[in-house]
Amino acid sequence: MKKPLIKILPLLLGGILFAQNKQDSIQFKRISDEILINEQAYSNLYDLTKNIGHRLSGSESYEKATKWAFDKLKEAGADKVWYQEVMVPVWVRGKESLQIKTAKGQWKKLNMLSLGNSEGTKGQDLTAEIILVKSFDEFNKLSEADVKGKIVFFNYPFNQTFISTGQAYGDAGKYRSTTASLVAKKGGKAVIIRSLSSSFDDVPHTGMMRYQEGIEKIPAVAIGPKSADELEKTLKSEKILAKLNSNCTMKPDKLSHSVIGEITGKKDQSVIVVGGHLDSWDVGEGASDDGTGIVQSIEILRTFKKLNLQNNHTIRVVCFANEENGVKGGKKYKEEAQKNNEKHLFAIESDGGGFTPRGFGLDMKEGKRRQIQSWASLFFPYGIYDFTKTYSGTDVEPLNELDVPTAELVPDSQRYFDIHHTAEDTFEKVNRREMLLGAVAMGQLIYMIDKNW
Amino acid sequence: MKKPLIKILPLLLGGILFAQNKQDSIQFKRISDEILINEQAYSNLYDLTKNIGHRLSGSESYEKATKWAFDKLKEAGADKVWYQEVMVPVWVRGKESLQIKTAKGQWKKLNMLSLGNSEGTKGQDLTAEIILVKSFDEFNKLSEADVKGKIVFFNYPFNQTFISTGQAYGDAGKYRSTTASLVAKKGGKAVIIRSLSSSFDDVPHTGMMRYQEGIEKIPAVAIGPKSADELEKTLKSEKILAKLNSNCTMKPDKLSHSVIGEITGKKDQSVIVVGGHLDSWDVGEGASDDGTGIVQSIEILRTFKKLNLQNNHTIRVVCFANEENGVKGGKKYKEEAQKNNEKHLFAIESDGGGFTPRGFGLDMKEGKRRQIQSWASLFFPYGIYDFTKTYSGTDVEPLNELDVPTAELVPDSQRYFDIHHTAEDTFEKVNRREMLLGAVAMGQLIYMIDKNW
Repeated sequence: MKKPLIKILPLLLGGILFAQNKQDSIQFKRISDEILINEQAYSNLYDLTKNIGHRLSGSESYEKATKWAFDKLKEAGADKVWYQEVMVPVWVRGKESLQIKTAKGQWKKLNMLSLGNSEGTKGQDLTAEIILVKSFDEFNKLSEADVKGKIVFFNYPFNQTFISTGQAYGDAGKYRSTTASLVAKKGGKAVIIRSLSSSFDDVPHTGMMRYQEGIEKIPAVAIGPKSADELEKTLKSEKILAKLNSNCTMKPDKLSHSVIGEITGKKDQSVIVVGGHLDSWDVGEGASDDGTGIVQSIEILRTFKKLNLQNNHTIRVVCFANEENGVKGGKKYKEEAQKNNEKHLFAIESDGGGFTPRGFGLDMKEGKRRQIQSWASLFFPYGIYDFTKTYSGTDVEPLNELDVPTAELVPDSQRYFDIHHTAEDTFEKVNRREMLLGAVAMGQLIYMIDKNW
Repeated sequence: MKKPLIKILPLLLGGILFAQNKQDSIQFKRISDEILINEQAYSNLYDLTKNIGHRLSGSESYEKATKWAFDKLKEAGADKVWYQEVMVPVWVRGKESLQIKTAKGQWKKLNMLSLGNSEGTKGQDLTAEIILVKSFDEFNKLSEADVKGKIVFFNYPFNQTFISTGQAYGDAGKYRSTTASLVAKKGGKAVIIRSLSSSFDDVPHTGMMRYQEGIEKIPAVAIGPKSADELEKTLKSEKILAKLNSNCTMKPDKLSHSVIGEITGKKDQSVIVVGGHLDSWDVGEGASDDGTGIVQSIEILRTFKKLNLQNNHTIRVVCFANEENGVKGGKKYKEEAQKNNEKHLFAIESDGGGFTPRGFGLDMKEGKRRQIQSWASLFFPYGIYDFTKTYSGTDVEPLNELDVPTAELVPDSQRYFDIHHTAEDTFEKVNRREMLLGAVAMGQLIYMIDKNW
């Protein structure tokens, strides 16, 4: 007896889905094996961090890095590599120091870093009394008379109770970005903040701050957590003078470049972007932020070429310029995509460090997110299980304005903010296998999207 | 109109479950916050690793560590702390060296470590030609004539394609544990193995080997991956002599102790065990293996006391003796539990390093496992999602014979076998937050089991 189609259809469909799933899981393993065995990413990271080093927008080393990225994309087998012009801000640090003197003491140097985009003291000593506040609430209670002529020290702690350190970073971030202008409005002379650090060491963390239009641009600096704790303790019992001397300043914008390489799509020219940012802060080596995102992205291109995966759509690696202090590269990329009427299917960034991946942030319509979530069982053997987050990377976010689904790799966050924006962000802090697994996960996701979208 | 009970019962039950779940999630957060803010585990680890250091069974430093653990359990608030006697093997390393000489060359030293429990050369030079095999298959093809008088070098690679490095460790482990007797049977003089390492550096890894009864006990040593690669390369084109000189040997067994501390159950005296092993190999500092398991377990006891969690059952921290080369502590613990008719509800060990936790291995009947899996949504916000593994810790495994459900914390595995059993297993390789989150996860699981079992 023939079974009615309505009864066997689910079985047929189930069979097709199972076979499909098996086919995908074979490709997942091919991608993973290729990267774990034949990878070039780790030696590329060594080269970028040790032979070029940190590379702030506008610096000579950033220009070196663009040439490096161009060559590495070629080496990896890109069909086409080019520079995308973009005007970037140029901030320079110069010599700087912060000293404190207690009522009975000598001048004592503190480990410090001026915050990115901050103005300095033009090489003059700025000497003033420090006053301590722990939060905006405490600061808002101070009158102009309290603040006038003083250096305000914001010792807002990094919230250790958040499981995702990114959440604690976001929470404390406003103390870095906004306090200088708030203090200037009340007549203060400078701002010191506690570094946005998950650690309790004495390493200062830089990072971008912003001035409000029309408000005096007073200097803003960060000190390490240990110095911050000690300073708070001393301030509770005595007056402390600070002497800041710094030379940082903003220069005129400069022409620079993002670097782009792609494998042409076999079926059409719709674009899937994978990227990181090529610039870094001007301390350390820009290894975890974001050398790893760059070498992972190049590794994916190499892997698609090497395995001859015959991508339907164009897979494009973008090494974005100027994420750290302006996001000019990400914004320019979106403008160009719009101007050239390029259809973008998807864009993902890796900018959370080369730590073992746990999932993807998915900033897109619910239907697309659900479809990616439906692939979860394929990813589970690779330690990828978290598809709940809805943010994406800073450089790909502008593409949201063109309705492009965007994403970010979500690596384990526990170690990132120990070293983020510091002299400690070095090659040695990156684990080879952890970083490679990030490339594996993004490569697998791109494989699925290329095939299904 | 009254609704029939059958219709409102699911709602009622749903409401109760929801309220229950909310209550549990509040307790989860209390445990997490207490550990992330007020922890003593990290400074305890510093103390154990820097002031005592490595601590092989039978060594003076192991005895120091037992006193240290006793004091720390008291400090953490244990109601009762005691030593559990156990006879342990005593293996001593002594001075050792391995040199090689190519056809044209000078003698050249290689970084090496004798494998644990191996006999040495009694301080005499053992000089012989090296022959290379890559696997058991290759070795089995060799005749007695091929092997007689030679040193056999097993260069079996650590399989980089496994996502869990523990799987690669298990896969390569038999080359460490069994090859000496196999080679001795064919008249070989010694064995060199490639270290069981996920890295490509030149750090040698020790670890336990075993001799078959009645077979000559020939020396077995490990070299680092880099030396192994170079040695293989050279051996393909020329003959190499090796000169091994070592003093390691097994001494008579000695009386030692596991250290135990507990909080008495409020309702009954059934026991929930959480532990790690107090011994370590005789190189490095025994930080990740297994200082972290010890300080995490003590931290959980401290937290239950500090939060006054009023555990129904006895929560017992066991710092096991002699995991590394005999598991005498774990076996003795089980014997004593059986002899004293102690009812054990559950036992969990942390012995995979203090890396960010991902889940639990659950070695128990399906029903119990399912119940723990049903708590998954409570754990998800803490990054704990993997309840699929069915193994448990080496020291708690013997309790399976008494039908005790056992478990192991499953941390991220990517970095562990870079440093496992090496001079690099130091405090500096442990990240504070990652290690604390392991304590949080185990504390939360124990809270649930204490309440529900």
